[in-house]
Amino acid sequence: MTRPPRRVRIDLSYDGTEFAGFQFQPRHRTVQGVLEQALSRIQGDRPLRVQASGRTDAGVHARRQVAACFLASRYDDRQVAHSLRALLPDDVRVEGVRTVDEGFDPRRGARSKTYRYMLDRTPHGDVFRARFALHYPREMDVEPMKHVLGLLLGRHDFAGFAGSAGNVETTVRTMTEARFVESGRDAAQFVFSANGFLNHMVRILVGALLEVAQGVIAPAELKRILDSGERDLKWTTAPAHGLCLWEVEYEDG
Amino acid sequence: MTRPPRRVRIDLSYDGTEFAGFQFQPRHRTVQGVLEQALSRIQGDRPLRVQASGRTDAGVHARRQVAACFLASRYDDRQVAHSLRALLPDDVRVEGVRTVDEGFDPRRGARSKTYRYMLDRTPHGDVFRARFALHYPREMDVEPMKHVLGLLLGRHDFAGFAGSAGNVETTVRTMTEARFVESGRDAAQFVFSANGFLNHMVRILVGALLEVAQGVIAPAELKRILDSGERDLKWTTAPAHGLCLWEVEYEDG
Repeated sequence: MTRPPRRVRIDLSYDGTEFAGFQFQPRHRTVQGVLEQALSRIQGDRPLRVQASGRTDAGVHARRQVAACFLASRYDDRQVAHSLRALLPDDVRVEGVRTVDEGFDPRRGARSKTYRYMLDRTPHGDVFRARFALHYPREMDVEPMKHVLGLLLGRHDFAGFAGSAGNVETTVRTMTEARFVESGRDAAQFVFSANGFLNHMVRILVGALLEVAQGVIAPAELKRILDSGERDLKWTTAPAHGLCLWEVEYEDG
Repeated sequence: MTRPPRRVRIDLSYDGTEFAGFQFQPRHRTVQGVLEQALSRIQGDRPLRVQASGRTDAGVHARRQVAACFLASRYDDRQVAHSLRALLPDDVRVEGVRTVDEGFDPRRGARSKTYRYMLDRTPHGDVFRARFALHYPREMDVEPMKHVLGLLLGRHDFAGFAGSAGNVETTVRTMTEARFVESGRDAAQFVFSANGFLNHMVRILVGALLEVAQGVIAPAELKRILDSGERDLKWTTAPAHGLCLWEVEYEDG
């Protein structure tokens, strides 16, 4: 019935609203939890462990997340994808499954990740975007904010924009894209691409940028934090539900 | 503290997913129920009754629904809107509140209503549209379907496309818009405008149109049902979650 395990890459998306984040936690509904449960059924109810390109926090969504595991099944990739679609709940979708080199590491192998943070700019909130966008009807002074976005580009120590440092080796990251894109009067989004992101980094950055747009924080103050790695200002971390892991890129596509 | 009641019109939108429809039902979460509860608080916890342009079924959404009630409150319209926004849950949004003529009847006064039915045409389903669109990845033969949409225009007895007739005076309606609009390869929608709709009519029509697009029902068969008002074919009513009450129009705007 079974085969020797092979390494499979799983590309998936999820609505994070009803998950306590990606990472497995006993007694909580997590993306990793439901994914491992479905995959273990596919290999005859034998448990397995899934790795991902990174964790997303509770309430954060993913348009593209990449996971990998060793799977022992006679099913080919297409059949595994089909079975996963049948077994997973409606708020997780599998885009594709493919067998990869057994050394494939979805986190270390990622060359670039992109996050987007969505703003709902309607006066009273669009009920159809309530799960996926921060309702932010206030006037925004966009120019100083765009100036700060320009400062973020390149290689910096982002320690001043990280939550609990965790056990990362370095807090230096290279930001390759940092934009604010307005779509008409009713919607806007922040787009960030980097070779990696620190804990809560995007939500902390968005919180700071919104304060810049309100004239509460001056761009020069954020530049100082970016240069020194030391945060001496307090601002509110933007809420999780506006954030979406948009893309993860690997050398081989 | 209180004032003589005035007639107020309330324009609202809702995500129907977690409601057992618009119409009040004891022990169920309904849009009317949460709206009446909030409005009664605004007039000092005295109960009231709300009328609407029409009911929407369980799971059906509204981008624009129009409701009205008699409200006794010192608050002006803007304050009532503000209070409603504070009191209502996140899946109902109030667009505006205004005092209207006391004869305003949101159902009988409606000149035209528009419903849209959304299709998610991605191969494996877009998780961010799962609540608001029917996942329908199948190939569609669009031309015969568009032919049927053309037949629907004008004044017809739609009895053959209605659910339980209810206590309507007539099943004749005038359809002023019946279109299928594709947005790229990944999304499409049906748009219907009429001076009124029968029970389940849009979902029954969409179910029939999808069968036409699959070649299962011939356009001529639907024409016969439209001409005779008698339904002798069975097809599946399209599910509620793809449907949205899009607009309600009145003589005075």
